[in-house]
Amino acid sequence: VRSVSGGEEDVASKPVRADAQRSLEALLQAAKEVFAVSGVNAPIREIAGKAGLGVGTVYRHFPQRSDLIAAVFRREIDECANAAIDLAAHHGPFEALRRWMQRFSSFFATKRGLAGALHSGETAYEALPGHFEVRLRPALQALLTSAIAAGEIRADIAADELLGAVAALSMSGNAEPGQVSRMVALLADGLRRSDPG
Amino acid sequence: VRSVSGGEEDVASKPVRADAQRSLEALLQAAKEVFAVSGVNAPIREIAGKAGLGVGTVYRHFPQRSDLIAAVFRREIDECANAAIDLAAHHGPFEALRRWMQRFSSFFATKRGLAGALHSGETAYEALPGHFEVRLRPALQALLTSAIAAGEIRADIAADELLGAVAALSMSGNAEPGQVSRMVALLADGLRRSDPG
Repeated sequence: VRSVSGGEEDVASKPVRADAQRSLEALLQAAKEVFAVSGVNAPIREIAGKAGLGVGTVYRHFPQRSDLIAAVFRREIDECANAAIDLAAHHGPFEALRRWMQRFSSFFATKRGLAGALHSGETAYEALPGHFEVRLRPALQALLTSAIAAGEIRADIAADELLGAVAALSMSGNAEPGQVSRMVALLADGLRRSDPG
Repeated sequence: VRSVSGGEEDVASKPVRADAQRSLEALLQAAKEVFAVSGVNAPIREIAGKAGLGVGTVYRHFPQRSDLIAAVFRREIDECANAAIDLAAHHGPFEALRRWMQRFSSFFATKRGLAGALHSGETAYEALPGHFEVRLRPALQALLTSAIAAGEIRADIAADELLGAVAALSMSGNAEPGQVSRMVALLADGLRRSDPG
């Protein structure tokens, strides 16, 4: 709850040996993949096996399942925020924004159970909405600001409402994946200035 | 459940006297306004009073509250579908489409309890999703087809997915009304052809 720094900083600030950090990374990656396929209640044994670790090691890192789930989501939020930097470095302002909106949308693709978990009252999840806000809003705001400065998009849309809109489109019940990305693409295209100058 | 014709046709096909039809209209309009302010569990007495009718008259038309709720929603679906015709008659193809998307979005503004009601298993609500589909999908498809034919919008978006996207944006939890209409406007602008010709 008190943690405000990113996941990587948390890890680096502890005296974790390099191999322990590698096993933590492997564990989080394995958990992410298993959760995406089997949901957040998948057997810990399956996650440990995929990471090449013993079940005891998993429980040593994360005594409660909710701790592991929170760590996976936190890492995904960080990865999504960091993707904004990569995209801005490799694409023009509007193109970077357009691609990031799709990247953010894909964040929700395998997270049908996330909303339920966040409202479950588990203390492990308490910091996640704040982390989401602290990392993703500024990431999108920076992309918007660049594209506005370049004259590529309209200037009257706030990062908050755009995050909410992409999330709503991405979590809408019975949409197939292609449908979500087409609708998010419409939203991005709608940002473009129709009256350049 | 078996009814496939529109609400107005249902009424017209029965031998209803003109004043009875006027009182039914007044009742549905009053119920719509009261539901919007106080929710679908508002006192029947309040609705009857607003319509200038006795409570007995309300129960004679609609023995169950769910019958009244279903009739109000059915009438609103019909009004939304009919609005497509009016808009097409008074505006250019893209402008009519853009305005109708906002009109459809406002359909959800006061219907936070609708999804719950539709999934409650009440027989009175069983025909509503079908009526929604039968009236609103063709209404939007006609507007899309006109705007595509006029070369004003892209041709690769289906009416179904666009209805779903506007609904998702419109029902998203904590958005204020201005926010929803800005996001629906972005979606509409995204439909515009960026490469005219």
